[in-house]
Amino acid sequence: MNRSLEFFIEFGGDNFSQAGDGVGRARAGRLLLKDRSGKTHEIKTPVFMPVGTLAAVKGVTPLELERVGAQIVLGNTYHLYLRPGHERVERLGGLQKFMGWGGPILTDSGGFQVFSLAGLNSIDDTGVMFQSHIDGSRHHFSPKLSMEIQRSLGSNIVMAFDHCPSYPASRELLENAMQRTLRWAGEGLNIPLQDHQSRFGIVQGGLFEDLRVRSAKDITALPFDGFAIGGLSIGETPELMQKMAWFTAPLLPRDKPRYLMGVGRPEDLVECVRAGIDMFDCVMPTRNARNGQLFTRYGKVNIKNARYADDESPIEPGCKCEACTHFSRAYLRHLFMCKDILGARLNTIHNLTYYLNLMSEIRIAIIENRFDDWVKTFYSDLNAPKNY
Amino acid sequence: MNRSLEFFIEFGGDNFSQAGDGVGRARAGRLLLKDRSGKTHEIKTPVFMPVGTLAAVKGVTPLELERVGAQIVLGNTYHLYLRPGHERVERLGGLQKFMGWGGPILTDSGGFQVFSLAGLNSIDDTGVMFQSHIDGSRHHFSPKLSMEIQRSLGSNIVMAFDHCPSYPASRELLENAMQRTLRWAGEGLNIPLQDHQSRFGIVQGGLFEDLRVRSAKDITALPFDGFAIGGLSIGETPELMQKMAWFTAPLLPRDKPRYLMGVGRPEDLVECVRAGIDMFDCVMPTRNARNGQLFTRYGKVNIKNARYADDESPIEPGCKCEACTHFSRAYLRHLFMCKDILGARLNTIHNLTYYLNLMSEIRIAIIENRFDDWVKTFYSDLNAPKNY
Repeated sequence: MNRSLEFFIEFGGDNFSQAGDGVGRARAGRLLLKDRSGKTHEIKTPVFMPVGTLAAVKGVTPLELERVGAQIVLGNTYHLYLRPGHERVERLGGLQKFMGWGGPILTDSGGFQVFSLAGLNSIDDTGVMFQSHIDGSRHHFSPKLSMEIQRSLGSNIVMAFDHCPSYPASRELLENAMQRTLRWAGEGLNIPLQDHQSRFGIVQGGLFEDLRVRSAKDITALPFDGFAIGGLSIGETPELMQKMAWFTAPLLPRDKPRYLMGVGRPEDLVECVRAGIDMFDCVMPTRNARNGQLFTRYGKVNIKNARYADDESPIEPGCKCEACTHFSRAYLRHLFMCKDILGARLNTIHNLTYYLNLMSEIRIAIIENRFDDWVKTFYSDLNAPKNY
Repeated sequence: MNRSLEFFIEFGGDNFSQAGDGVGRARAGRLLLKDRSGKTHEIKTPVFMPVGTLAAVKGVTPLELERVGAQIVLGNTYHLYLRPGHERVERLGGLQKFMGWGGPILTDSGGFQVFSLAGLNSIDDTGVMFQSHIDGSRHHFSPKLSMEIQRSLGSNIVMAFDHCPSYPASRELLENAMQRTLRWAGEGLNIPLQDHQSRFGIVQGGLFEDLRVRSAKDITALPFDGFAIGGLSIGETPELMQKMAWFTAPLLPRDKPRYLMGVGRPEDLVECVRAGIDMFDCVMPTRNARNGQLFTRYGKVNIKNARYADDESPIEPGCKCEACTHFSRAYLRHLFMCKDILGARLNTIHNLTYYLNLMSEIRIAIIENRFDDWVKTFYSDLNAPKNY
């Protein structure tokens, strides 16, 4: 465990009953991360982390990330290992400096990508042999190498190297993966990191409650600074995902940050905050933006739709983002139809603004002990017939 | 002629001898354009106009255009007619409002694109029949329609519909095209525009001096507010282009703005300012940026080059643009290799900054009567061995 991370719950949490008290298990907190220079970054939770796969949130500058309210971004170990290479990033002063982002960074372990993205792969207890999705070159990831890469990247939060079978998987495979994840977690803990780096362990176990119980018990016995729920949001229905998040969250220590990996839709964030989760990441706001799908309080806007061709209103009336305050749906639709990268960029800024505002509203509602009411309004807005 | 445009020469011009007085024929001026609301925009010349083909300078916001020093942008009639359609742009309040750009706009006539971009085309005295490069649909452009489209777009400067044969072309074809350009110029002048719109005529004639003389004589006899040299920068060598610009510029009235269409490289801008040109446009800074070719005082940087992989310096030391003040060559190379649109965007901002600073330096050197010295330094920097 590491003195560079501190976590405080300000309001809510598991000590509240599950209904009737206004917040459920939802909790608002502060995550303090001390960086290499000794500077402390305060992250207000629950928090959504935009995904900056290749040392950039696609199309967006660090200054814009700050403006949309990003507090911490995620980098992908698998991608950065392949391009530009973790040793290069280290030579260039670490990921923060390389990408020009002044805030904290969480890196994943690469475990998920070597299965989901890389070519032919084979796994044994030493790690995973895989082929690069870029040039087919062969590589081997081990718990040790994953830690070494993340050490070179210099991220503030380092994720344990885990085995996440693709969905659906047999109970046997999930049980093996869970045990391997535990062994790898232990091996990773033996690899030293930089002083400012904290580590999170990952609970696996698929959709089997008893496996989740065992995995949570074993992983949380290890000296991690926070815990993540892995193996969800990989193809199962949102209902199953939410159910398993609800089941697993209270198995994690209440005094440490809880991170639900790869989630999700706005309603998933709401439900999983209710389950007691503090941290989220997902490519949805950024990837969908590039595909023209925009999030609003009243539901999604597919900007490609012909109904917006002459529409002078902003994506979301009332939104304060750069896209909504400067440009019309008609113009953004035009940029999308022409594939102008300005469109991808403005759409991304809007969607990130929506996601980060959502988390901010959730947090305030928790602190003001009116989260249940907020949730009701959230759903009634979302399901209201929208006039655009 | 139109009261919405005024042009003043502040310093230099044809009254200077061609050598020895420090500026050659170079001239610094002010172009005043009154817009629809009655507001006057002042453009300091010589000026470079970034190309915003489809109602956007690709990847860049209007605010960023302002920041890099753009005074006026160019829109392409052919492209905007096809997408989103000029009638739509008119319904949405005109091109300026549609794209959120507060400054003036010049639109070309579509004449060049129907030949160079569109599919099978045929030309007669009524205009050009062509197929859309997007969906192959058939369209017909006439001098009248070109004016009507530009009237709908509401640009501040409207270009006459001309016939620009592709290079190389026979003398006969060029002579016919020149005569047709003259007829079309007259036809276009009969089509009313909005009150705030000015019109420029275009001189054709290819690389034949006698045709240029005739074309300039005939076109400048018509009541245009400014004159352009067309039919250059379409495949001939830079030397031939510069020679013909030098020959043609003084054939145009000295008290009206002179616009050299589609030019060019930094050294072309320098030489053609020396020839007495006031206005330029070219896709080079923006298109090359997206292809990773960056302009600097000491020559071009191909950011893809492996030598930049570990290079922590900015694209151009001393440059004040957003890319140079925030990011390293190593990072920009990485973004280029990953095809991240953030790279295209930052490269574009750098190249536009370079081009617009270049024009600003040229202007100041002219006004301070030291343009010849400035040109010497420009070339000695450009040809100096660069250490990157």
